Amino acid sequence: MNERKLILVCNDDGITAPGIRNLIEVVEEFGEVVVVAPDKPQSAMGHAITINSTLRIHPHREGNRREFACSGTPVDCIKLAVNKLLDRKPDLIVSGINHGSNASINVIYSGTMSAAMEGALEGIPSIGFSLTDHSIDADFSASREYVRKIVEHVLRDGIPQGVCLNVNIPNVSTEMIRGIKVCRQARANWEEEFDERKDPSGKPYYWLTGVFRNYDDGDDTDIRALENNYVSVVPCEVDLTAHHAIERYKHWENVP
Amino acid sequence: MNERKLILVCNDDGITAPGIRNLIEVVEEFGEVVVVAPDKPQSAMGHAITINSTLRIHPHREGNRREFACSGTPVDCIKLAVNKLLDRKPDLIVSGINHGSNASINVIYSGTMSAAMEGALEGIPSIGFSLTDHSIDADFSASREYVRKIVEHVLRDGIPQGVCLNVNIPNVSTEMIRGIKVCRQARANWEEEFDERKDPSGKPYYWLTGVFRNYDDGDDTDIRALENNYVSVVPCEVDLTAHHAIERYKHWENVP
Repeated sequence: MNERKLILVCNDDGITAPGIRNLIEVVEEFGEVVVVAPDKPQSAMGHAITINSTLRIHPHREGNRREFACSGTPVDCIKLAVNKLLDRKPDLIVSGINHGSNASINVIYSGTMSAAMEGALEGIPSIGFSLTDHSIDADFSASREYVRKIVEHVLRDGIPQGVCLNVNIPNVSTEMIRGIKVCRQARANWEEEFDERKDPSGKPYYWLTGVFRNYDDGDDTDIRALENNYVSVVPCEVDLTAHHAIERYKHWENVP
Repeated sequence: MNERKLILVCNDDGITAPGIRNLIEVVEEFGEVVVVAPDKPQSAMGHAITINSTLRIHPHREGNRREFACSGTPVDCIKLAVNKLLDRKPDLIVSGINHGSNASINVIYSGTMSAAMEGALEGIPSIGFSLTDHSIDADFSASREYVRKIVEHVLRDGIPQGVCLNVNIPNVSTEMIRGIKVCRQARANWEEEFDERKDPSGKPYYWLTGVFRNYDDGDDTDIRALENNYVSVVPCEVDLTAHHAIERYKHWENVP
């Protein structure tokens, strides 16, 4: 078996975003790349899937590789790629490079990370990459270097079944980055405000706005790593059980 | 302070679904109810939020209570309710009763549970309720009894900060239910297949279909509880960190 590695690439900013273009260029060094990504921005779609309507796939022409633009969410893209479009299971799934941080609580809202988590659920080593800069003109040069390093590490060391990696890269020059920190997700939240406006006929509508609040002063969090110019790596898995809280409610079992 | 409890009700099947109507009737016994729920079905929307378009709210006239139909996702509903529509923080958020199971891995796709998790992120005791029957004509009589019991328990015992409860009710008569089991989320997955069809002009489109596969033979899981006709209660929190996997990658920190 000397088959080339098969690498599936996805994101949530859409198939034409600079972040995914940079990611594709780097991971092509490691094997054969197939791209299945949303045909439009799908940020903040979380783990949404399309069950009440249909999905479309269109070939996307860019370079010589197989690329498909999908009408669905990032999780739809992974499900379609793995179960319909690819003739064998990919060796690796990479998602991103997201334009904007997916550290801490952002992981649960992120389409980019949901694609990686869906990969993990399918039993495929999966990594989500994000740069902490929302700009369309973001500078991905440091990100490219750390994508390369981390893909090398993962192909060598593997990822446990059901686990994926959430990698965030601070928005500084390559020289400023101090290395990698393996972290836990910081406890944080978005404090929301809704901007209420009136439409031309005088009826109200709302825009979601918010401010990120970190409530976690631990030294071992992804937010702390990024603040100190480290690339943060958080191993993630889709077990939402609050194991520490199970005992607290066991006495409910005794009530008839 | 003898103020009546303020209870916020949400779901993902939409504000007119029988499940939410049953839930409202039960929780009105415990305090003042405000309903903020999607104006259309939003199943499987996961933790999606609306950031690239606007949100609308319309008063929904049903009974004498305050009800609002929202154009967004279940998580949007919670954010809007807590940060804009309500003049004080609710004492309790209940979401559901979902038409269909949200046990095991379904929790990550579920809009109903995402609403409850968003409540937990806002620091409000939150519970998601689901009946393991997708039918619009589902029989909610056993569910009503267990909603009542569990709301009583929660108002007495509280929920730790950041935790919410995922409650699933087996689709059997009240007499058949053997009680409550406090569980962990079973390791399971959906094995997907895509049904490929042709539109009238001959172009392909896809429907997502899938079969639920439980890979977990533990005695302490929600799936096991439901199979044995228990109501399953899983305490959940939004920490996706795979804590057990952190040590495995620590040596990456030593690579320059």
